[in-house]
Amino acid sequence: MSSLDSIVSLCKRRGFIYPGSDVYGGFAGTWDFGPLGVMLKKNLMDTWWSYWVDRRDDIYGVDADIIMNPRTWLASGHTATFADPLIECKACHGRFRADKLAKGLNEHVTDDEFARLGVKCPTCGQETWGPIRMFNMMFKTHVGPVDGEESAAYLRPETAQGIFVNYKNVVDSLYPSIPFGLAQQGKAFRNEISPRDFILRDRECTQMEIEYFVHPSTWETEFEQLLKETDTFLEKEIGLSMSKINHLEVAEKDRAHYSKRTVDFMYQYPGGEEELMGLAYRTDFDLQNIARESGKSMEYRDKQTGETFVPHVIEPSIGVERLFLAVLADSWDEEKGILHLPANLAPYKFCVSPLLKNKPELVQKAKEVYDLLKAKYTFVTWDDSGNIGKRYKKQDEIGTPKCIVIDFDTLEDGTVTVRDRDTASQIRINPEEL
Amino acid sequence: MSSLDSIVSLCKRRGFIYPGSDVYGGFAGTWDFGPLGVMLKKNLMDTWWSYWVDRRDDIYGVDADIIMNPRTWLASGHTATFADPLIECKACHGRFRADKLAKGLNEHVTDDEFARLGVKCPTCGQETWGPIRMFNMMFKTHVGPVDGEESAAYLRPETAQGIFVNYKNVVDSLYPSIPFGLAQQGKAFRNEISPRDFILRDRECTQMEIEYFVHPSTWETEFEQLLKETDTFLEKEIGLSMSKINHLEVAEKDRAHYSKRTVDFMYQYPGGEEELMGLAYRTDFDLQNIARESGKSMEYRDKQTGETFVPHVIEPSIGVERLFLAVLADSWDEEKGILHLPANLAPYKFCVSPLLKNKPELVQKAKEVYDLLKAKYTFVTWDDSGNIGKRYKKQDEIGTPKCIVIDFDTLEDGTVTVRDRDTASQIRINPEEL
Repeated sequence: MSSLDSIVSLCKRRGFIYPGSDVYGGFAGTWDFGPLGVMLKKNLMDTWWSYWVDRRDDIYGVDADIIMNPRTWLASGHTATFADPLIECKACHGRFRADKLAKGLNEHVTDDEFARLGVKCPTCGQETWGPIRMFNMMFKTHVGPVDGEESAAYLRPETAQGIFVNYKNVVDSLYPSIPFGLAQQGKAFRNEISPRDFILRDRECTQMEIEYFVHPSTWETEFEQLLKETDTFLEKEIGLSMSKINHLEVAEKDRAHYSKRTVDFMYQYPGGEEELMGLAYRTDFDLQNIARESGKSMEYRDKQTGETFVPHVIEPSIGVERLFLAVLADSWDEEKGILHLPANLAPYKFCVSPLLKNKPELVQKAKEVYDLLKAKYTFVTWDDSGNIGKRYKKQDEIGTPKCIVIDFDTLEDGTVTVRDRDTASQIRINPEEL
Repeated sequence: MSSLDSIVSLCKRRGFIYPGSDVYGGFAGTWDFGPLGVMLKKNLMDTWWSYWVDRRDDIYGVDADIIMNPRTWLASGHTATFADPLIECKACHGRFRADKLAKGLNEHVTDDEFARLGVKCPTCGQETWGPIRMFNMMFKTHVGPVDGEESAAYLRPETAQGIFVNYKNVVDSLYPSIPFGLAQQGKAFRNEISPRDFILRDRECTQMEIEYFVHPSTWETEFEQLLKETDTFLEKEIGLSMSKINHLEVAEKDRAHYSKRTVDFMYQYPGGEEELMGLAYRTDFDLQNIARESGKSMEYRDKQTGETFVPHVIEPSIGVERLFLAVLADSWDEEKGILHLPANLAPYKFCVSPLLKNKPELVQKAKEVYDLLKAKYTFVTWDDSGNIGKRYKKQDEIGTPKCIVIDFDTLEDGTVTVRDRDTASQIRINPEEL
């Protein structure tokens, strides 16, 4: 059990996540990973890449630039529709998301509906609202030395389009057999009106997305297969409690208009159930949009059958930050102060300590054990600060599975104490056995 | 020996690098990594991280957001000085970098000096220039639903400041002993007026930077040590020909005003010598700027001696794209069509092929060998396209060190042909020996 506040506090105290630009009082919706956070984030990203790309034969990586040709967003529909309803208080000029103030209404809320609710401004308490207008959440910038609309460009709001624009080049250079997938990890940006909930709704996140290209007739079986593989990923590779994950079949009225099936993987975060990731059948919507906008054929020619067709797409999509928070929420025992991270995700696998810092013979022996383990496992940390109890407490908080302590018995019989994070049990073994 | 054109062509043909947003006719200064490129780029980034962070005890990772509090750039000086001289042709309104048109002059070129040269517009041939003005190369955007200067923010033009703003939080949460370093890999953006030279001068690049914090009295020895370690990294880990690398001691007049020593590592690219990476002594310039702008102390307290001081900083900095191009230039034999990548960097370590595709017994045996190798090495590819000669040619071009061919002898004695990329020599061995 853990509260969001307790996780946020742990993250800052132990160097997992700091508020972005903290030294300048922060910057809304931005968060920076500290040394321990980078290690956990890297482990999550590497585990995802290994499972979905390296260990398979049918999924390849791509890595597109963040600033893309603006026609990308015309074709995808983001220029027209990637927007939240924004309302301004005429008294204090505070700006808010209309659907968040108007409880029970969704992003299609109208001025009339809003007025009927009698919402007061959260800042100044007045009830003098301007009209609702749609605010596009893409960050806009200008490329090259000319200002004005012809130089406008956007930070990608999703990595998916970075995959779709490269589909044709991949097909032409690698000739992959269908079904095949293209995977990408990278930053995506959303200019949230009110960023909140720690890293759940930040302005900048790292997405991990796969676009899996299939023959249109096979989408249902391929969808089921990817659903199963996603469950396996979350359970076996990441070690999440599957009892906290709920497959939500998204109803037709809530799905993107082109999607025939979407499953949201909902996770019980400390603040309530929230989307952890999604699996969406996108049909040929994106490739057809690109074909229309670019005038180029997106057809795939099957080498075996000679059939040509525009592939349909199934997309497993997850944000690293949401996964990171789910892993912390799953692992953090707030009362005991223990972060029960799976060993494959823990930043450090071992911590090596001399029992006393002021005994050179203990320190020297501990260094030998440290060097032995570091050469073998790399992810080993050294701790000779404070007393042994404080060190255990610190290693418990950063999720180190095993603490190795070198004491006076070590000098006599060569054995070391191995203390287990989860049970606090201690055994004595020879360091070579580790 | 290889020309830049030949490398660009190889990159697109084999799926290393495509022009960004290519399906829409590209987008100046952006480049996307294809499947093979992602593998090579990941190998370079992982090798760097392993060498500088994981295998050491004194360097930790951080990962800051790209959009930072704008005070960052006031403090660092980028708002005022990160600019190129821009000149506009009054006849055709083309805009150019004045220092690039005015050969022999640098970025401090004045209107008078420019006028004296009698430069004609490269677009329309006229000589009617407007005044030179400084064009800031930071990409500007707006954060939140309010336009105007108070919401202006920038895409970071270097990753270094993402490290410096986190220095205090790292010191407060991890208490590292000095000297220590903070490392970051991530995107940085420069709104180049005229992007060119393939990935050497792109608008978006992935930087790998370390800020190494030292006691002010030790900077000279620490600098020498990092210089040596950088050479070892380039030679032993990346396998670059050191004869193509030149240590350029940057003269005082060319150094940043705060730097007391900078060494540029120049590499002989196909288009001529260019900076591959830099090692710069930045003194306490950045931390003092942050202290002044934030009002917070950047002092470090030595646990042993009790001395407090603001650390000085030495920065090894490299862009992945420049390293990527150096590795390709070093490896690519244009005449023979062989990419002599070091095995640790090659996207695939082995290619497995049945000699003939239409012999099921060969295909089945080849699949067994493939599965054996894939389970052990992961980075193994399968190729049964075209004839064996074409497959060798393809694998030579993507840098696969060994091709394993299953033929009729395999069915009899179990041995396979192993063909070496660099020598084209073939031996027969048992697949378990691989």
